[in-house]
Amino acid sequence: MSVLHGERADLGEPWLVLAGQAFRSRLLVGIEQYESASLVRRVLEASGADAFITTMNPGNGRSSLLLTDLADEIPVTRFRWIGTTSFARSPEGALKTARMLRDSYGINVIKLDVRTSDNKPDNEATVKVAEILRGEEMELLPFILPDTRVAAELQALGCAALRVMAAPVGSGLGIPLPGQVRDIIEHTELPVIVEGGLGTAHHVTLAMELGAAGVLVNTALIRAARPEVLARSMKHAVYAGLLAFESGPMGATTRGVA
Amino acid sequence: MSVLHGERADLGEPWLVLAGQAFRSRLLVGIEQYESASLVRRVLEASGADAFITTMNPGNGRSSLLLTDLADEIPVTRFRWIGTTSFARSPEGALKTARMLRDSYGINVIKLDVRTSDNKPDNEATVKVAEILRGEEMELLPFILPDTRVAAELQALGCAALRVMAAPVGSGLGIPLPGQVRDIIEHTELPVIVEGGLGTAHHVTLAMELGAAGVLVNTALIRAARPEVLARSMKHAVYAGLLAFESGPMGATTRGVA
Repeated sequence: MSVLHGERADLGEPWLVLAGQAFRSRLLVGIEQYESASLVRRVLEASGADAFITTMNPGNGRSSLLLTDLADEIPVTRFRWIGTTSFARSPEGALKTARMLRDSYGINVIKLDVRTSDNKPDNEATVKVAEILRGEEMELLPFILPDTRVAAELQALGCAALRVMAAPVGSGLGIPLPGQVRDIIEHTELPVIVEGGLGTAHHVTLAMELGAAGVLVNTALIRAARPEVLARSMKHAVYAGLLAFESGPMGATTRGVA
Repeated sequence: MSVLHGERADLGEPWLVLAGQAFRSRLLVGIEQYESASLVRRVLEASGADAFITTMNPGNGRSSLLLTDLADEIPVTRFRWIGTTSFARSPEGALKTARMLRDSYGINVIKLDVRTSDNKPDNEATVKVAEILRGEEMELLPFILPDTRVAAELQALGCAALRVMAAPVGSGLGIPLPGQVRDIIEHTELPVIVEGGLGTAHHVTLAMELGAAGVLVNTALIRAARPEVLARSMKHAVYAGLLAFESGPMGATTRGVA
């Protein structure tokens, strides 16, 4: 997202609107790996999330998350439903999962993941799958390694936002190369979500200081002794980073992360 | 401060009580370098601070901050007054400033700074001045380079808290060696305030993730295009870091900052 200091929307304003669905929370949390629907509820409430991410098992046509269990805990219709292909391990699997989510649940916003065998985004395959799904008018949030050329291609395809990998998913390594992430943010018109490696609060704050539109956290919360406390932390971490970004030129940050 | 996860007080609880004065805000801001009392008010309000730091010019016996101007802006009696010796450049100057603050304003809580010519804490001289001022029953918040032996000496003298330098004052370098800061936190019974080099929000968040009782920021706010927006950011950054610390063992943080 091309951003200038002071020009961005405030905390409560939407940063993304898709087919009438406004995303206000800049903190997206994955909920697929939890075993307890009540813990999912507590995490969603603490994070302030207004969306949740779900998927299906293409093998048996069922949602991998027990949506009925979740529906007992929270008013699921109040949330934006985002479908994910993150468990697919091939372009074909990603396509199939996206279409099943649309056909079964009417989900047309897809967190598009096409990953290589080492669980990193396959940029080239992601562009190909995105092109097909855009032809079917699905709204896409593709996950990529930081590459400005690929970012431009996905923007040209009309993707809704870009998810840029900071560090390998589940690594907790934070943002080892903030300059790469900032490059993408500065070169695309799309909102940029930082994802992967965000293991604790200060990683999330840094992502937002770099000008991210949002962050996605998952493993960090699952691994915490008290996931709902870390979710509450992450909400403040997003505010802290966004306000720091909006406070003016990031001279100190630039020095601090060089 | 020897801390165990989940044992610390919550956000609104005091982390330090001195002579009936309870400190609830874990964010301390320096206000000496501002030219406008109204900006000081906005920064104090945005930061949620419940204390302010003032000093005197030993040469003319006047407060360097225009306290009367500030009193026009905020109810100064609602704040804890902390005196600082940070502008003194010798042990004698620090002693003289501390005594003048006590004798002129009744301030008995001193942010004790005895610095070398390169503006870094002089640990040895700080211990000597602390011993004299403790003999006069002043409450002290001494500023030191991370050194567990010096921390133990200041604890033995009955200091109220320790302020540990993360990076040179005004550098904005963040916390280059978080292990050093954590060492002090784990080895002292005193509350530890991290100070120096905290140039933006994620530095503050990291400090609190390491188990700090509080942080002190100054230059970062003064240099920001919109100091009150960064002060609001820093408040959230403190919450984010404290909650992350309380969410459980810091496996991810340890990896993320190694």
